[in-house]
Amino acid sequence: MRPTFIAGVVVRELAPHADERGRFTEIYREAWNTCPPNLQWNCVCSNARVLRGVHVHAVHHDYLFVAAGTLVLGLHDIRPESATRASSEMIVIEAEKPLGIAIPPGVCHGFYFPIPSVHVYAVSEYWNAKDELGCRFDSPELGLDWPDREPLLSERDMKAGDYAQMCQKYAVASEQSGSGETR
Amino acid sequence: MRPTFIAGVVVRELAPHADERGRFTEIYREAWNTCPPNLQWNCVCSNARVLRGVHVHAVHHDYLFVAAGTLVLGLHDIRPESATRASSEMIVIEAEKPLGIAIPPGVCHGFYFPIPSVHVYAVSEYWNAKDELGCRFDSPELGLDWPDREPLLSERDMKAGDYAQMCQKYAVASEQSGSGETR
Repeated sequence: MRPTFIAGVVVRELAPHADERGRFTEIYREAWNTCPPNLQWNCVCSNARVLRGVHVHAVHHDYLFVAAGTLVLGLHDIRPESATRASSEMIVIEAEKPLGIAIPPGVCHGFYFPIPSVHVYAVSEYWNAKDELGCRFDSPELGLDWPDREPLLSERDMKAGDYAQMCQKYAVASEQSGSGETR
Repeated sequence: MRPTFIAGVVVRELAPHADERGRFTEIYREAWNTCPPNLQWNCVCSNARVLRGVHVHAVHHDYLFVAAGTLVLGLHDIRPESATRASSEMIVIEAEKPLGIAIPPGVCHGFYFPIPSVHVYAVSEYWNAKDELGCRFDSPELGLDWPDREPLLSERDMKAGDYAQMCQKYAVASEQSGSGETR
């Protein structure tokens, strides 16, 4: 494990085995207890200069792995009762030095890809539009100094609301789900 | 689902969502019931002309997905009581047309990569050397017409025994595990 600033985020250094054929990496074992059991796995290919996010969830946990390329991961804690509330952190992940990263509910995350990249991630709940909250990646309150001021965004991320709106929606969703940051 | 010749092999056509940022694909949902619950996920990068296999397991199921490149998947059934015993099948999988493939115990599998490729796979049991059986990829009984006669192999796969030895070891392991082909 590698320490992070943000409480509940788990960064696990993985151990790739390389030989003349290529590289083998165990990316997840249930017994590692890095996150709750995963119901679904997804694979995402991203072009250079794409930014996905910033997103946050009230219910589901994410677990992610970079299979190819480079991910600049921005994290920010909006859980009202968290010891690291309002903390931000950036982690650069290169496929050649693999990490497994677990992100709990209430920790906002944005993914920036400086080069074409592939990442795989698992979720502890099936996709639910109600659990997809977010704000503009360049909201100053996030405290995230992205390496690109004009990244390629989806329409949804481009038109996302501001930080205060996100925090308010998160508080409501968190209360409705009965989870809060203690989940 | 797509039919296969070999009983118990599941080939699921996945639905990638492409946009200007790249491509998103759901690669696995527990509710699809394509395979037993997975305890472990692995990621494998392979150079061009690598062949991994031929392998077979008495206990664990595999579920695989090609994230980048091309996989030529060779399958062959050695389950004594299977309706498709001794049948062989080759499936070419390109990352751009993604499939999720579940391979049950007793179905031999070899992976050939004509170009640099990345695949992700899940297993229903943690790695156990005793459940790793196999034979030479070019054993004639496999009935697999590989596109490359001199692929790059690991030392283990290079020195693997013959088909008859594999079948015998499988029968013993299958009986010991109490699973057999009905598992």
